[in-house]
Amino acid sequence: MEANLETISNEILAGNRRALARALTIVEDGGPEASSLVRRLFPYSGRAQLIGVTGSPGVGKSTLVDALIAEIRRGGLKVGVLAVDPTSPFTGGAILGDRIRMQEHTLDRNVFIRSMANRGHAGGTALATYDAVRMLEAFGYEVVIIETVGVGQSELAIAQTADTTILVLMPGSGDEIQAIKSGIMEIGDIFVVNKGDLPGASKTASEVMHSLELAKLPTAWKPPVLITVAETGEGMPEVWAAIGEHRKFLEASGLLVERRKAKVQAELEELVADMARSNLKASLAHSHIQDLLALVVGRELDPHSAAEGLMQELFGNGGR
Amino acid sequence: MEANLETISNEILAGNRRALARALTIVEDGGPEASSLVRRLFPYSGRAQLIGVTGSPGVGKSTLVDALIAEIRRGGLKVGVLAVDPTSPFTGGAILGDRIRMQEHTLDRNVFIRSMANRGHAGGTALATYDAVRMLEAFGYEVVIIETVGVGQSELAIAQTADTTILVLMPGSGDEIQAIKSGIMEIGDIFVVNKGDLPGASKTASEVMHSLELAKLPTAWKPPVLITVAETGEGMPEVWAAIGEHRKFLEASGLLVERRKAKVQAELEELVADMARSNLKASLAHSHIQDLLALVVGRELDPHSAAEGLMQELFGNGGR
Repeated sequence: MEANLETISNEILAGNRRALARALTIVEDGGPEASSLVRRLFPYSGRAQLIGVTGSPGVGKSTLVDALIAEIRRGGLKVGVLAVDPTSPFTGGAILGDRIRMQEHTLDRNVFIRSMANRGHAGGTALATYDAVRMLEAFGYEVVIIETVGVGQSELAIAQTADTTILVLMPGSGDEIQAIKSGIMEIGDIFVVNKGDLPGASKTASEVMHSLELAKLPTAWKPPVLITVAETGEGMPEVWAAIGEHRKFLEASGLLVERRKAKVQAELEELVADMARSNLKASLAHSHIQDLLALVVGRELDPHSAAEGLMQELFGNGGR
Repeated sequence: MEANLETISNEILAGNRRALARALTIVEDGGPEASSLVRRLFPYSGRAQLIGVTGSPGVGKSTLVDALIAEIRRGGLKVGVLAVDPTSPFTGGAILGDRIRMQEHTLDRNVFIRSMANRGHAGGTALATYDAVRMLEAFGYEVVIIETVGVGQSELAIAQTADTTILVLMPGSGDEIQAIKSGIMEIGDIFVVNKGDLPGASKTASEVMHSLELAKLPTAWKPPVLITVAETGEGMPEVWAAIGEHRKFLEASGLLVERRKAKVQAELEELVADMARSNLKASLAHSHIQDLLALVVGRELDPHSAAEGLMQELFGNGGR
């Protein structure tokens, strides 16, 4: 298998798309093979501009991503897209299967679009996303777009693995605006009111701008609020320009390095948590671990005490 | 502090609402105090019927929860509500602050409504929810409703800490239906098309029913699809009756015990992961851990190898 992984890595570096697809499946599944692949390709990663696109279902994120791809391609850059889906914890199937709209790009070898399923828990999905980005970077994509569906906690966390995060709204997104007022505002580097041909687009844009004025922004960056009609491409050059502006700001302010360092730390925390989780799962069959479980189910032992016992079991004296 | 926690536990058991509010803040914050409180009150937990309510922003979840409270109170049962919000990882503020609609219940001592903020990562929020439910149970609430905003992965996981999960839709929820078709379907025990007075309600209900017929359901339970107008209370007795039916099904089939066992296992996995994460966070200041971080940022060491090194550092020989 190691020999096989060596072949896959070499083929990715040589620009073989099938090898890239294989590698993405491997990192999606996680485990030792994924780690081994990342170990090989890590030196070739970290080179792309990472753009996160998030927002509620129905605001037109996918169409916007399509239009953004077209914009980026006009500039000659190669672009990879990861569409991360919230899915059933039971089936793990991806829901964005029918990206029919994106078919116009499928003949363009400089565009790669991939839907990613989840890995059963939010942290695992974020980990898979980090690694998938590395595969696309090693292949040579200069821009990677990470699209997530929904404004849930884990989806936001995933969108924020990017350098620049775009929050997409549509006219009359009342609930969204309410959310934005009290926190989510700090997550968007760029705000886009899509479906700008619907009534109320400029009102929604004004509401967002007003909220931004009241918000305590975490950096000196003032997030622009743009109106687009992604379906016709209207407003898209402005979105791409804003991404470029934000990139310049990140570099000039030293925030690019700072953010990437914070992301490494977040990834390591998640990896360590994931290892502990896997360690427990692998040990579930042991009879004394089953006994602990039974005690909790029978309400004879509380979960916190049980978890401390498990840490001892799994990690010996080091477990707190 | 331990003496203080003893007072809080005793006052909760004696029915002091202020003590309950304090306790919820403590479990929301997590850490050793939360564990200590859970340890004390765990024997009094596990007694409530747990109902999860989830769905996208705008479908009228909060109004539905209000109407459900009224329905439950008519039967004389005491009800607690936890509204879990997706919020900014930076501020941690709750967004459902203005539950003005719920004010009619605030004078009813047998109703307790609480918005919960997140704990910075999805797993932590789920853990806080488990513990918050225990506090409400120890206080004596016979029904606990767990309301989550959004259909993201972590929100669904939180809604599923309940025995019965209600997925709320509205007429014309096209994107939702698409999601339902390929997975989320298996998450709802009861489907509610709210805002049933809008055009297309029965069409949406039919689409859901059709998808359910095609879906491979995980158990013998056939999820009912109900139409409501939560604002007027229309259809709410049927929702409450369906919850009762599902409860009977869970008990008769032995699934109630099986589900609770699976939840204990999920909680322990998350607790162990959380302990590993906290352990790393507490050690971040150490210079050799800072050195490891710097190596990754400088691309001299990949994150997977670094995490393995960290497991060794944190847990000694036991870390795989």
